[in-house]
Amino acid sequence: MTQELQRRGSYEKGVRRRQEILDRAIEVFAERGAQGTSLRAIGEAIGVSHAALKHYFDSREELLIEVYRAAEERSTLGDPPVGTTGPVGLMTHAARRNHGVPGLVQLYSTLVAGALENGHDAARSFFSARFRDLRGLLADRVREEQRDGHIRADITPDAAAALIIAASDGLQTQWLLDPSVDIEESLSLLESLLQGPVRS
Amino acid sequence: MTQELQRRGSYEKGVRRRQEILDRAIEVFAERGAQGTSLRAIGEAIGVSHAALKHYFDSREELLIEVYRAAEERSTLGDPPVGTTGPVGLMTHAARRNHGVPGLVQLYSTLVAGALENGHDAARSFFSARFRDLRGLLADRVREEQRDGHIRADITPDAAAALIIAASDGLQTQWLLDPSVDIEESLSLLESLLQGPVRS
Repeated sequence: MTQELQRRGSYEKGVRRRQEILDRAIEVFAERGAQGTSLRAIGEAIGVSHAALKHYFDSREELLIEVYRAAEERSTLGDPPVGTTGPVGLMTHAARRNHGVPGLVQLYSTLVAGALENGHDAARSFFSARFRDLRGLLADRVREEQRDGHIRADITPDAAAALIIAASDGLQTQWLLDPSVDIEESLSLLESLLQGPVRS
Repeated sequence: MTQELQRRGSYEKGVRRRQEILDRAIEVFAERGAQGTSLRAIGEAIGVSHAALKHYFDSREELLIEVYRAAEERSTLGDPPVGTTGPVGLMTHAARRNHGVPGLVQLYSTLVAGALENGHDAARSFFSARFRDLRGLLADRVREEQRDGHIRADITPDAAAALIIAASDGLQTQWLLDPSVDIEESLSLLESLLQGPVRS
């Protein structure tokens, strides 16, 4: 085996191992969230040595961000929202999916709150980019729905996109604190308002 | 001086001292948020001994909640929203006020994220009650506006109240991560949607 092949083999093994750690961490966090635990305690919970974790992730925050990113990508890939093409429908679908994994909603809140503080550069750049991309994606959906006559033409797509994301995030927070809050009812109210007046 | 009077004098002194600590803490947090500092570091920042802080507040979280509560009450008292009686107008007013004190928005996010995790009972009960009361208040405003013909009659007040709070909270988060997000534009979009169709 040449050195090049050895390096590649070892790199691929590293990528697999990192992936296994993320898989296991997602299971743990889906159940119980971040809970302010240290990198060491996380290692214990997922059965990975502290040294191994430090090898694959620079910090606790980087691990948590990667867990969140992997969990989000996986659920998006594994469960395409058939028939839900509207911008609010997409967020409702995501909220419904999150219903089953309150630990990930907790993890999301913890990371976003951290991102707002100084000194959390990894979280700040991840979430700034995530919100920006999501606003872009939803604004495009708003434009499409406006062309198709499903969303009022007098609405500014960017303002609507930020509003829809905010509504979805904020409702999930309220629901975690009080399960009687009906996320879907409020989101479907927003959807119908964007569509325009009900003909009576 | 009777013992009773001594006790009362000492009680009043304690209340005043606690209030002074909160005043000083609000100034510090308004500038820089909670930033994951310990109770000891907070004491240093506001020039109060760790022992004194422990005397007045059971934990770091209790101090932070009291700082948030006092700051919110103060700004509500000091600046009544004249002419903003609608539910979205109220939240827009609050968001505008928060614009000047990003540290308090950070503090709010930190406390709410903490409240979603287990083991943060003080924050959980404070924010559950705060959201419930705020939903009740805004739902009443929605009903009034419906009676006056300013909000569409076919809207469920409770669903609208949760939606308005969620929108305001979520937009402030997005704005802290990206100042180009226009909170007021998105909230005024929501307000106009609740009012009903624009006549063209």
